[in-house]
Amino acid sequence: MNLLYALDIIGTFVFAISGIRLAAKKDMDIFGATVIGFVTAVGGGTTRDVLLGSYPITWVHDLNYAIVILLALPFTFIFRKYIVNMHRTFFVFDTVGIALFTISGMQKTLNLGINEGLAITMGMVSAVVGGVIRDMLCNEIPLIFRKEIYATACLIGALVFFLLDKYQIFSQNINYIATVLAIIVIRIVAIKYNLSLPKMKA
Amino acid sequence: MNLLYALDIIGTFVFAISGIRLAAKKDMDIFGATVIGFVTAVGGGTTRDVLLGSYPITWVHDLNYAIVILLALPFTFIFRKYIVNMHRTFFVFDTVGIALFTISGMQKTLNLGINEGLAITMGMVSAVVGGVIRDMLCNEIPLIFRKEIYATACLIGALVFFLLDKYQIFSQNINYIATVLAIIVIRIVAIKYNLSLPKMKA
Amino acid sequence: MNLLYALDIIGTFVFAISGIRLAAKKDMDIFGATVIGFVTAVGGGTTRDVLLGSYPITWVHDLNYAIVILLALPFTFIFRKYIVNMHRTFFVFDTVGIALFTISGMQKTLNLGINEGLAITMGMVSAVVGGVIRDMLCNEIPLIFRKEIYATACLIGALVFFLLDKYQIFSQNINYIATVLAIIVIRIVAIKYNLSLPKMKA
Repeated sequence: MNLLYALDIIGTFVFAISGIRLAAKKDMDIFGATVIGFVTAVGGGTTRDVLLGSYPITWVHDLNYAIVILLALPFTFIFRKYIVNMHRTFFVFDTVGIALFTISGMQKTLNLGINEGLAITMGMVSAVVGGVIRDMLCNEIPLIFRKEIYATACLIGALVFFLLDKYQIFSQNINYIATVLAIIVIRIVAIKYNLSLPKMKA
Repeated sequence: MNLLYALDIIGTFVFAISGIRLAAKKDMDIFGATVIGFVTAVGGGTTRDVLLGSYPITWVHDLNYAIVILLALPFTFIFRKYIVNMHRTFFVFDTVGIALFTISGMQKTLNLGINEGLAITMGMVSAVVGGVIRDMLCNEIPLIFRKEIYATACLIGALVFFLLDKYQIFSQNINYIATVLAIIVIRIVAIKYNLSLPKMKA
Repeated sequence: MNLLYALDIIGTFVFAISGIRLAAKKDMDIFGATVIGFVTAVGGGTTRDVLLGSYPITWVHDLNYAIVILLALPFTFIFRKYIVNMHRTFFVFDTVGIALFTISGMQKTLNLGINEGLAITMGMVSAVVGGVIRDMLCNEIPLIFRKEIYATACLIGALVFFLLDKYQIFSQNINYIATVLAIIVIRIVAIKYNLSLPKMKA
């Protein structure tokens, strides 16, 4: 099985859970939770595909994405005790999601023969836009604009992947895994040591 | 005259009115009201066409949509006494709009030769997205995420149409009308008996 | 150098500054400010290109747009004293931006051989949508829906350009400049004399 495809499907599942959990926190019904899960999971990749004019959009021709999102609903319900009791689960699912989507978004853009600068941008769009839409629909200030290092973790991860991909020292699958781990580690370290970027003064 | 086209045009008119009425309630000027009416009316169909990569987008090559939306402005103004005095007019226009757009969105997707599962999704996108954008621009919690059975009515209607269309017992026009009536009835019954889906627990 | 291209690039720079300034006011960090600047600058043109199905989207194949937006960040920082001390700078940058984008949006649509009514709509979409997204992401009521003559200035400017373009009395470059000045003057006059459109009653 293709590792890139696996990363994308797992990212979809994990992002759907982050959407469903926020919807549940906002007292939505199961239908609203499904919609928020769906939009969170596909929002970033859809925006990337629309910007690139890359049709058909992934989830529109591959039903596995919809199936994985629908499965996230009973999964979140059944394992809710474990998920809720775990500290910072929302953080975990969200972080794993952005890491996986940064990679799959970059690789898909590179596969279209587009230059690296744009591929980095598209990796970040893939990772970040679903969560922004989720937060806006739930009337939250988008997580991306809050204090924590967030999109910055994607950006550094994207640069790591760019370098690994350019110099081809390791196999592609190792590049994927190293990048995903880099993003997760950066974000955990940033939270632990309360790192943040300087504020814009203007 | 083509019944599908008529449903789409009437849905556009009715949705434009629902947008203009909400804008008026929010003290917007006539220009703002026109914009909200326009976006409410075309938002769902545009999103569907962009997701499907189905170009040109309907209202971009057929000026009748823009004309119908511009006509909704004086119409809403002239008949405002009757519209305002009618109890739950906003509800009525909104419900008729989602019913008509569910059908026209599904049928257009099926006409592109796309499978039924996706056609149901696209029917709901066509019906629901315009109202979500309207509510977000007006700083309201999107109607779709509130207690009432709303998108669920579209979903059930879409399933009704799917079955009628699959088994071809009646003519297509009867299928259209039966589905529209089903959606309207479900929503009225849901309001009357205060039905709602269970909340998501997670 | 092509004047139309220059207008588009300057509009991008100016809109990026308006986004960065609002982000700074909202206490965002430099990354958030960059994102808001980017989205403000490319949001309108991207929406226009997606609606028209005109691929590749401008900034996706021309890196000059991204470069100009990244340059707006240090520019805004270095000149912040002058910018902040100038009264109504946000207003100035925003107004110049909508003027330039109305023209470039209309001309690009006309270049695709699309009719004038739609070109006027697309000119307004190009001018206005970036600011709407900026305001929504920053949790402000979109400027376009507030009291001031705003989109109306674009509309009148678009009609001016339409007439100048139709009757070809002057050279195209003079048409561009006259339209940009018309929009800026209309907006300044509207602010000075506190003009506004009548409110929608419905």
